[in-house]
Amino acid sequence: MGRLPEVFERYQADITAALKAILKERTSPLYDMLRYHFGWLDEKGRACHGPSGKAVRPTLCLLANQAVGGDYRKALPAAAAVELVHNFSLVHDDIQDDDRERRHQPTVWAVWGKPQAINAGTAMRLLADEAVASLDVPTEKRYRVQQLLDAATLRLVEGQYLDISFESCFDVTTEDYMAMIGGKTAALMACSLQVGAEVGTDDCRVIDGMREFGWDLGLAFQMRDDILGVWGRPQETGKPAGSDIRRRKKTLPVVYGFEKAAVTLQRDMIKIYSNGALDDGAVRSVFDVLDSVGARTEVEKMTAQHIDRARITLAALPIEPAVRQDFETVLEFLGERTF
Amino acid sequence: MGRLPEVFERYQADITAALKAILKERTSPLYDMLRYHFGWLDEKGRACHGPSGKAVRPTLCLLANQAVGGDYRKALPAAAAVELVHNFSLVHDDIQDDDRERRHQPTVWAVWGKPQAINAGTAMRLLADEAVASLDVPTEKRYRVQQLLDAATLRLVEGQYLDISFESCFDVTTEDYMAMIGGKTAALMACSLQVGAEVGTDDCRVIDGMREFGWDLGLAFQMRDDILGVWGRPQETGKPAGSDIRRRKKTLPVVYGFEKAAVTLQRDMIKIYSNGALDDGAVRSVFDVLDSVGARTEVEKMTAQHIDRARITLAALPIEPAVRQDFETVLEFLGERTF
Repeated sequence: MGRLPEVFERYQADITAALKAILKERTSPLYDMLRYHFGWLDEKGRACHGPSGKAVRPTLCLLANQAVGGDYRKALPAAAAVELVHNFSLVHDDIQDDDRERRHQPTVWAVWGKPQAINAGTAMRLLADEAVASLDVPTEKRYRVQQLLDAATLRLVEGQYLDISFESCFDVTTEDYMAMIGGKTAALMACSLQVGAEVGTDDCRVIDGMREFGWDLGLAFQMRDDILGVWGRPQETGKPAGSDIRRRKKTLPVVYGFEKAAVTLQRDMIKIYSNGALDDGAVRSVFDVLDSVGARTEVEKMTAQHIDRARITLAALPIEPAVRQDFETVLEFLGERTF
Repeated sequence: MGRLPEVFERYQADITAALKAILKERTSPLYDMLRYHFGWLDEKGRACHGPSGKAVRPTLCLLANQAVGGDYRKALPAAAAVELVHNFSLVHDDIQDDDRERRHQPTVWAVWGKPQAINAGTAMRLLADEAVASLDVPTEKRYRVQQLLDAATLRLVEGQYLDISFESCFDVTTEDYMAMIGGKTAALMACSLQVGAEVGTDDCRVIDGMREFGWDLGLAFQMRDDILGVWGRPQETGKPAGSDIRRRKKTLPVVYGFEKAAVTLQRDMIKIYSNGALDDGAVRSVFDVLDSVGARTEVEKMTAQHIDRARITLAALPIEPAVRQDFETVLEFLGERTF
């Protein structure tokens, strides 16, 4: 796997400490499922250092806070909250998608069963509210952060609804796809930056600008994820080659490929996607269709457009120069990441 | 089915209107699952008048508000919020328990599948926060209601965790059971009364008293539910005879019966509960064990104790006389209801 830019490591210890603090007083074994998911406990409840995620959202939250001149330590509960919301969605997604592995480990439901994993996910979402409650800001602002988080989660669930409903559809357009990832990914990414800024300033223009920046960043992030899900290298992504095709996900390359393919190829794809498991031959056929319409180049171009838009939004915002540089690094990384 | 006391019908139209208002602007088909669950739409999305619940929690919320001299219409968003939280838990419970029917209709997951039903439940919980946000009270108070709702939901999830974990346990004590229903039922019932009072007054003593009253009421409510789950008459409960035994639920009668049974009978019960489906003979054997230790009388006595405690709490509170009478009616009904 490649290396993450330094900015994603800078706050890791603080973010983990903030998350641990929220779970500290929680004694029910229910919460051990959460600790397992975060890589702090193994399946038997023994302390461990399991794999954790990139912590993209909390990092962006803290950067946004510093961008507006805040003391990032004050924004840590908000960062923990967005990370909890993100992880709530991962735990429920794994149940919904029947995924048994995440970060090379069994998913929560694969260990505890789906009924309990539903509880684990819900508890994670509720703890996000507790994190918000511990923010050291006036109540009006704390409540505003709470509402932003609620709105983002609701959009996330709406996006997840669309994503699942696409599984049985063949007429998904790139427009439908954009609505889906807007909810599923961009809403929480935008929220992460917005709440970080909200904690650090009262200047609406910058707060809204941070949200807008996060929105395009989120779209680009998901589109890059989709590219990696099809063309990523297994040794870098940790997922099998063409994994999203194999899982019959309606990600952007497939949606675009289907839209642009000739009618005969569309029929072939419908046939392939209507079957149960996709064998190697079927996966190759899908790759061929995508190649024939230049899907990769096109999707990369679409991703770059959102990176550019994010860059333009950023340029217009009056933020701390050092953080501006960090955001540039993030944009560059997200646009070209291979893992 | 018997008749509900008038008090449970008094606010029904207002509560439904408040719930509909919250869902009004929501256009994603995701929300049709919620409308179906509430009995406003059928499976095909056509308007209908399906069965709804007793609306116990929102009714108690509004009564508590009037008890402290509030204008109940101001508390309607809070009532809608607790009803949404309760229904979120029903939608997820049905998934977790694999229950295909509720109120003589297919459950949400039985129609849309479990992945989408998870989204429906989560959306319901999030809309509860939106309902709270629409309360016309100072932000401090609105945020306080939000936190009470969060804490109650977290306890609810903890209770649900225990309930599921009891399925594979034989050493569940009545104490474990009380902890479970404290989370699963009493916490939200207590919260319903507390937030109703909170919206109507600043007097902490009455607010806390309402919560305490609701706690015992909730415990008694669940214990009565457990009695009906074993000895209820199918034509009144709408459930098959001995339904909780058939479903191998560790409800109070069974937990108590197991605790008090002779060792040989305990062994028989373990054998019965370790098998897959419970046939009629097995169900009869469990009934015999419960009879042999006088489980029904004992559980009814335990239920009455909590009704009494609730009555004592109530007596000490300075509340509106008319509402005091309503609460007495509720206590009487809940203690003796047969459906």
